[in-house]
Amino acid sequence: MLIVGEKINATSKRVAEAIINRDEEYIKGLAIDQADAGADYIDVNAGTGQGSGQEISDLKWVIEVVSEVIDKPLSLDSSDPSALTAALEHYRGSDVMVNSVNAEMERLEPIGRAVAGRNASVVALVMGEGGIPATVDERLEAANTIVEYLDKQGVKQEQIYFDPLVLPISVDTEQGLVTLRTIEQIKSRYPSARTIMGLSNVSYGLPSRGMVNRGFLLMAAAAGMDAAILDPTDSRMMGVVRVADMLTGRDPACKGFIRAHRKGLLVE
Amino acid sequence: MLIVGEKINATSKRVAEAIINRDEEYIKGLAIDQADAGADYIDVNAGTGQGSGQEISDLKWVIEVVSEVIDKPLSLDSSDPSALTAALEHYRGSDVMVNSVNAEMERLEPIGRAVAGRNASVVALVMGEGGIPATVDERLEAANTIVEYLDKQGVKQEQIYFDPLVLPISVDTEQGLVTLRTIEQIKSRYPSARTIMGLSNVSYGLPSRGMVNRGFLLMAAAAGMDAAILDPTDSRMMGVVRVADMLTGRDPACKGFIRAHRKGLLVE
Repeated sequence: MLIVGEKINATSKRVAEAIINRDEEYIKGLAIDQADAGADYIDVNAGTGQGSGQEISDLKWVIEVVSEVIDKPLSLDSSDPSALTAALEHYRGSDVMVNSVNAEMERLEPIGRAVAGRNASVVALVMGEGGIPATVDERLEAANTIVEYLDKQGVKQEQIYFDPLVLPISVDTEQGLVTLRTIEQIKSRYPSARTIMGLSNVSYGLPSRGMVNRGFLLMAAAAGMDAAILDPTDSRMMGVVRVADMLTGRDPACKGFIRAHRKGLLVE
Repeated sequence: MLIVGEKINATSKRVAEAIINRDEEYIKGLAIDQADAGADYIDVNAGTGQGSGQEISDLKWVIEVVSEVIDKPLSLDSSDPSALTAALEHYRGSDVMVNSVNAEMERLEPIGRAVAGRNASVVALVMGEGGIPATVDERLEAANTIVEYLDKQGVKQEQIYFDPLVLPISVDTEQGLVTLRTIEQIKSRYPSARTIMGLSNVSYGLPSRGMVNRGFLLMAAAAGMDAAILDPTDSRMMGVVRVADMLTGRDPACKGFIRAHRKGLLVE
């Protein structure tokens, strides 16, 4: 499973402060820790809520700082399409992920255009204006809108990471299955596209959230999830990622799992 | 998920000794501990390898002893069809599971006949003479043979628990997916039948086996597994069973999970 390290995100107060105060060492530390822990991509989100102009200059600064200390590709993350396209233009790495579009034209149009024809992938949330749909069918409808529009723009299916989205199980106990069925359907309809998910929403409002998130990761992996946005320094979660890879045939001869065991990385 | 407690099994040396020595207290203790830990059925296997006649009298003794201390229904478990039919005739409980048949006529015929028309379910291993098949298709072929034969005998699909079987992932890394796809196909082809599995074979030859078994339980639950044969006194495993039930919509309002948390039963 491809791991996107989630820790450099301005929705965390500590990270927002570091961005505002230009605290290079703190941001660099988060990047290095996540890369060392096995992240394949490092997500960078600089949305401190001070407007688009500020976010663009903050995101560029984070990209510079992180790129100084690690070689991993970045996942450029913003709710503001203009911040994403500006950051993408500024970014010099050879591989990049853009997080995210959904079925709304004001995101799909500029980001699709920026991603087409370059070595970039795009995270596509299977939702439109109305928020996260409660049913599999509505999510697949959003996926279809996205695929068709991106295809017209020249974005290949291989460049798309669909996020099936998950609603809290504490609010509706059917939502775990809704997400799993959405993953299966997306994998079956768009075999060249990949799937990605952040897990923590599933356990919102419950105790023992880590246990619930890890359980859902295993289920999502069995349903065909290709990538996860998570904290790679969470050693229990990363142990479960190794189990998931092994049990879904992604760890040839179980070598990765056995190596992790020898290194003491399988925290139970 | 329905839990079948696996601990009273003569393949364990300690259990075999207790059976041979008619050590009531030890067997009763295993029954009570498993019932208290949340087992829905208690599996009883008395195959100490001293012939069919001895096994029949041993199995009857175990049934008597266990029935004195717990109210849970039993799963009568033997590789010897004549021991199973004799035990079934002897058994006075109102509900019972018979473990197991496969696609071989010498098992299917007598056990099917004994199960038909009474409140009993039967575990059906999806294999024939040649051992565990390596592919999904061969397993489904065995399932089909079993369903057709049992149907002729008057055994309803609702009475069948199919065991999809699992081979060690350390021998062939595709085998996890083979088992999961077999579960999905069985659930889709025989919607009234249920599925059951012992988990520990999947982790044979690997380190950190508990972690692997728990991971596979979550994946199997997402694929549609209805029941598991396991050690219910393993509190980590039982915590994961609760997570699995909650994430697959089997725990209304998450009440079981939250109650387990309050009781300190969710061991991470």
